[in-house]
Amino acid sequence: RYGYFGNEPLKEVKLLVCSFDGCFTNGRIYLSEDQKEIISYDVRDAVGISLLKKRGVQVRLISERDCSKIISALKLDCEMKVNVTNKLEVVKDWKNKMGLCWKEVAYLGNEEADVECLKKAGMSAVPADACGAAQKTAGYICKCKGGRGAIRELADHIFLLMEKVNSTGMK
Amino acid sequence: RYGYFGNEPLKEVKLLVCSFDGCFTNGRIYLSEDQKEIISYDVRDAVGISLLKKRGVQVRLISERDCSKIISALKLDCEMKVNVTNKLEVVKDWKNKMGLCWKEVAYLGNEEADVECLKKAGMSAVPADACGAAQKTAGYICKCKGGRGAIRELADHIFLLMEKVNSTGMK
Amino acid sequence: RYGYFGNEPLKEVKLLVCSFDGCFTNGRIYLSEDQKEIISYDVRDAVGISLLKKRGVQVRLISERDCSKIISALKLDCEMKVNVTNKLEVVKDWKNKMGLCWKEVAYLGNEEADVECLKKAGMSAVPADACGAAQKTAGYICKCKGGRGAIRELADHIFLLMEKVNSTGMK
Amino acid sequence: RYGYFGNEPLKEVKLLVCSFDGCFTNGRIYLSEDQKEIISYDVRDAVGISLLKKRGVQVRLISERDCSKIISALKLDCEMKVNVTNKLEVVKDWKNKMGLCWKEVAYLGNEEADVECLKKAGMSAVPADACGAAQKTAGYICKCKGGRGAIRELADHIFLLMEKVNSTGMK
Repeated sequence: RYGYFGNEPLKEVKLLVCSFDGCFTNGRIYLSEDQKEIISYDVRDAVGISLLKKRGVQVRLISERDCSKIISALKLDCEMKVNVTNKLEVVKDWKNKMGLCWKEVAYLGNEEADVECLKKAGMSAVPADACGAAQKTAGYICKCKGGRGAIRELADHIFLLMEKVNSTGMK
Repeated sequence: RYGYFGNEPLKEVKLLVCSFDGCFTNGRIYLSEDQKEIISYDVRDAVGISLLKKRGVQVRLISERDCSKIISALKLDCEMKVNVTNKLEVVKDWKNKMGLCWKEVAYLGNEEADVECLKKAGMSAVPADACGAAQKTAGYICKCKGGRGAIRELADHIFLLMEKVNSTGMK
Repeated sequence: RYGYFGNEPLKEVKLLVCSFDGCFTNGRIYLSEDQKEIISYDVRDAVGISLLKKRGVQVRLISERDCSKIISALKLDCEMKVNVTNKLEVVKDWKNKMGLCWKEVAYLGNEEADVECLKKAGMSAVPADACGAAQKTAGYICKCKGGRGAIRELADHIFLLMEKVNSTGMK
Repeated sequence: RYGYFGNEPLKEVKLLVCSFDGCFTNGRIYLSEDQKEIISYDVRDAVGISLLKKRGVQVRLISERDCSKIISALKLDCEMKVNVTNKLEVVKDWKNKMGLCWKEVAYLGNEEADVECLKKAGMSAVPADACGAAQKTAGYICKCKGGRGAIRELADHIFLLMEKVNSTGMK
């Protein structure tokens, strides 16, 4: 499952969409007595998002929960959408507005609600601890768990593929 | 210990009672200098509770501690009871008020204080890191630890059994 | 290293002293931007402290740091001393004021600063992740890590020994 | 990779520079709804920093992020610099102002941004979970992960080497 995958010649990835809970975070929610939610992420993944941006890949986060307060506190240079009931619709909308085809979209998801997006995206990946249904659908299973380096690992993977594409003229 | 268990033909599960500390949470309590308690849970387990509800299984949480502030901050669609000194009495009361028999009650517990409920419930389960006494009593030992997917795993298990019951007409 | 240990016939344990950081907690300190410290502990260990008290064993916590704010937030029914520079002096003082001999004192520690107490106590134990110097000194090495069940494990161990002592009349 | 390493006879280490995120912390950032960041560290590493200072080794922390609020909340007896864009420049500056040569500087880093410093320092080390590029450059790979004892382990390592140097007159 490592290396190149997919049915069609790889185009350059232009957009990476990541599920917020369980991919950017480790899926753990901390809750304090004064009713404040806390989540956690790994600096490695934030660095991965920066590196992707520098090389021309937009990163966007997506969540079914209403985690707008926390997301506005994140100093990440990427767009995010919360309270999403249908992830596929949102990703399709982003893709169209950016004028991309599915082959240029990568998706990192971990839950049953991510399966449809994983099926459509040109590059699909799951963290090592994703649910069974997501793992079966994904083209790439990260060695890292969600919220513990999976985005960084996928970024490195994308860079490697891009280099190959550029050096062999597969584009 | 996997698959069907119990002495009597399975009826449909109508109520799942979970111990709060160590089953819904991982049993870890965070305490800040300004005297606020923080607990944590896994989004997977919250999703599991939603899925159970959609398929007609009520979920209720039970705790011996006074964690009412945190529990009111939880946006879970399920009833909870705190400050419980005798768990069996509470579960028995819930069962009677809902007009259920024990065979329709599932119980997920991890401590010595859960042993009596585990003995009575039609379906009994413990997280992978439950105490010895609880593990010996339970019909099903989750592969997941408490607060790290055990409720979700049990939910999937219940759905599987329900499907079998429905398809073979065991009801 | 399991079972009975020590050079002299076991007397009943009357006092258990635990190091706060690394035994009651997992040695991890969380720090927020508004300069508040957060620590965490395991409900299992809090239950262990209650069980010990019920069976007549006092539990006391000891720390070299100034963690008085957090300790006053703990709803534990046990005495604690912070800002300790010489742990042995404090434990000796407690022992004398309670009219105990060293054989009646158990000590759970994990750091070099605990070595002297571990040497003196009638029963000495370390969590699985204690530093090398502490591990070499201790009579009992817990299977649990500090802040993750070590106190509970030691409590169960003490109960087992007490039962043996009582049943064989070793007292 | 254990024991002595480096191309030149070891001089005494006078300064240890540690990356903040991923070496002093475990690289995990907690974020609350009220937009406050929380990090965590291990008491063992704080003890390691104290021990180093007692034996004449200065410890300094360095970060690319703006974590000044948290760093001012740390009650550590060591200098720290945040918002660093070029770590090598900062370390070079520290070294010169202290009148040291590179052989007297030790560096603990985990990221690609640490590679240049790891190359220059007389003693270079990474936590067990450092990124590949950092691991390849470092002279010593800690058994401990970042934020989970790596500084303490390195401190013990430095003490051992210093003792050897002093006893064999290698200085």
